[in-house]
Amino acid sequence: MAQVLDLNSIRSVLVRLEDTIIFSLIERAQFSRNARTYEPGAFATELLGWQGSWLEWILLGTEQFQSKARRYQSPDEYPFSKESDLPEPVLPPLEYEPVLHEPAITNVNDKIMAFYTHDIVPSITKSGDDLNYGSTATRDVETLQAVSRRVHYGMFVSESKYRADTETFNKAIKAKDVKTLESLITKPEVEAALLKRLERKARHYGQDESQGGSLHDMKVDPEVVVRMYRDHVIPLTKQVEVEYLLKRL
Amino acid sequence: MAQVLDLNSIRSVLVRLEDTIIFSLIERAQFSRNARTYEPGAFATELLGWQGSWLEWILLGTEQFQSKARRYQSPDEYPFSKESDLPEPVLPPLEYEPVLHEPAITNVNDKIMAFYTHDIVPSITKSGDDLNYGSTATRDVETLQAVSRRVHYGMFVSESKYRADTETFNKAIKAKDVKTLESLITKPEVEAALLKRLERKARHYGQDESQGGSLHDMKVDPEVVVRMYRDHVIPLTKQVEVEYLLKRL
Repeated sequence: MAQVLDLNSIRSVLVRLEDTIIFSLIERAQFSRNARTYEPGAFATELLGWQGSWLEWILLGTEQFQSKARRYQSPDEYPFSKESDLPEPVLPPLEYEPVLHEPAITNVNDKIMAFYTHDIVPSITKSGDDLNYGSTATRDVETLQAVSRRVHYGMFVSESKYRADTETFNKAIKAKDVKTLESLITKPEVEAALLKRLERKARHYGQDESQGGSLHDMKVDPEVVVRMYRDHVIPLTKQVEVEYLLKRL
Repeated sequence: MAQVLDLNSIRSVLVRLEDTIIFSLIERAQFSRNARTYEPGAFATELLGWQGSWLEWILLGTEQFQSKARRYQSPDEYPFSKESDLPEPVLPPLEYEPVLHEPAITNVNDKIMAFYTHDIVPSITKSGDDLNYGSTATRDVETLQAVSRRVHYGMFVSESKYRADTETFNKAIKAKDVKTLESLITKPEVEAALLKRLERKARHYGQDESQGGSLHDMKVDPEVVVRMYRDHVIPLTKQVEVEYLLKRL
């Protein structure tokens, strides 16, 4: 089996991404809410009629450039912008061993964008507008991209589990039995351990070490990080995993 | 005095940047050395004759885009690329209260690039090439930009100290007395405390919390972070501070 489908190696990627996501949230939380950056058309004058939000404009520019650096050739990277708006890579494609079944893409970035802007940003920032729109959007892009990678990595989880017990999965897939597929890929004790670990990490990284590690004044509320995973990241990953399996045959 | 020149507020920016810099180094250390991304002309074929390095190409693209989002209107942000290669902002300029004396710019980014690529990257990465050139450069850009902001922030330190004791500084500036200027802006006990704090932070953030916080397997060697500040960041900041003062009158 390809190394990328080894469950231990998948796990280490996902665990590592937890750190990246917490770091990014901490970085974002330095700035005010800056609600204007999320409003469609709020910068139409400056951006020559652009009807999306400031964040979407920054995302598009970032993704257009990263697309040239072949980011979206990687099977675990999916853009927030329309694929048709992105240029071709300038580098020759990396020779990825094809591990996912085609068509694999189940892009749920619109849902990630929705919960992030509506639920998470208001929960980790102080209200108001500090005019740091560029810095804000840069941090938002980093967080969104890390969360997106985390969620879409579910396809590797599915493929790995599918290969380990093809027969059982095939039966459920043919019957379009979503409930059984969900139970085949869900391990409640793993999820519980994940949320505990996440809480510990957020508390750890969020401490103000400048003061010798005092516990008040966390840079980001650990509860919000846990809630983000419990209510959004884990359910969305599961959705990606199941949709991938339903298209597997 | 403008709030940005309050020494406490300057200090909190610098202390906060320590976290950002350590986070960025940890993120970079996930990937291999990828020496090819630092070699001038190594991607000339793919990048249509580009004679700089892959990292410089990514920097230019990133900075061109961020320049549109008015990053370089901010008095604490300086580009690595040539200013003449950067487009005008699309947003109207933020009304920064002018706090630095003009001409303020002492851009030492070439020196930051040199110590980062020659000393720091080889010290925090495992040797070899994992072909993740896009990810590598993205992390490099984040680290370089954070370090650059840290170093150039020295101009605010200088201006703040200058305003607090104009007469003493004027005398040294007129005499081009670099030694005295250095001693006026240097506080050995503050530097010693900084290096201690940095070591503690790097150790704290670099622990693998997934394992419950074991001390082996640090994600980045705290000694390298301390060395980077002691041998590079602090001396370069001092150079920026002194050069700023020499142009102050």
